[in-house]
Amino acid sequence: MSRRTAVPLPKAYRLLNHGPTVLVSSAHAGRRNVMAAAWNMALDFDPPKVAVVIDKSTLTRDLVEASGEFVLSVPSRQQAAMTLAVGTHSGREIDKFSIAGVHAAVASMVGAPLIEGCLAWLECRVIAEPHIQQSYDLFLGEVVAAWADPTVFSDGRWHFADDRQRSIHYLAGGSFFATGDEFKV
Amino acid sequence: MSRRTAVPLPKAYRLLNHGPTVLVSSAHAGRRNVMAAAWNMALDFDPPKVAVVIDKSTLTRDLVEASGEFVLSVPSRQQAAMTLAVGTHSGREIDKFSIAGVHAAVASMVGAPLIEGCLAWLECRVIAEPHIQQSYDLFLGEVVAAWADPTVFSDGRWHFADDRQRSIHYLAGGSFFATGDEFKV
Repeated sequence: MSRRTAVPLPKAYRLLNHGPTVLVSSAHAGRRNVMAAAWNMALDFDPPKVAVVIDKSTLTRDLVEASGEFVLSVPSRQQAAMTLAVGTHSGREIDKFSIAGVHAAVASMVGAPLIEGCLAWLECRVIAEPHIQQSYDLFLGEVVAAWADPTVFSDGRWHFADDRQRSIHYLAGGSFFATGDEFKV
Repeated sequence: MSRRTAVPLPKAYRLLNHGPTVLVSSAHAGRRNVMAAAWNMALDFDPPKVAVVIDKSTLTRDLVEASGEFVLSVPSRQQAAMTLAVGTHSGREIDKFSIAGVHAAVASMVGAPLIEGCLAWLECRVIAEPHIQQSYDLFLGEVVAAWADPTVFSDGRWHFADDRQRSIHYLAGGSFFATGDEFKV
């Protein structure tokens, strides 16, 4: 089971500020799913909001629209193969929770699951904006709870030590960048 | 002068896919400005679109709304202090092009300038969505031209060699992460 400590909501944007690729999980009426999304960003500080692109073809889209909720989980380098797998397969064809390393945990405020073993989690409620959902596949969410593994994020700061536990940034064609050195200017 | 080669538009999303912090430059009626934005993402492949958050308090906001254009430039690690400086000062108070290292170059399709010495550039036209601009400070743009320094990006791939020429990811409080190791799964 993942270690999880609460992140104060005004600090939740820091989980996404550096632009990691995330997993988007969702659930509705007994179905659940998870996909990968490089196209995500923070949108506001307090209350924290996020934006994420969810294509019309995905099962995730149906579940997010029906439930009005989603969870963003920040995967680690050791979860990169799993991230690529959930980003490649469709939940319409397979149960992605049967993929190696994809395990659900219960969220605190939404019905969508957290993905076990990730570095951080943002529980979100959709801010309904039907026009941009339809025109751009763009979903906005308010973060209603946030969590992080305290071995990599605490007191509002990421502090990566183990290279396997760094966040990741998808490029294309199965290639990722790991989050690199921290530096101050 | 920066080396720049054209990036085919269907590959332009790859300049932002890994979540770097960018510079947003703008110009209108003889005024110009540049700010930093960690809150940016790709929004579509072809035609390529982007999303970026531009706060109401900024001069950039005025110039982008008046001109309907902006440029995203991807700064390097050796430009991190400049990135923080243009992200800290307001264009209402100082001419940010007087800050050390901030030099403008002429764009090909828009009036907003490119920022010299960056790794890549996306020339964008605003896709007018007044409601989300007003409610969330969220701007959508279509990428009408894209460029990269061929020493770090070519054939649709980033290939960082010199650590000073890696892209950067802002966290908070003057701290950044460099883009780290590339790996394939």
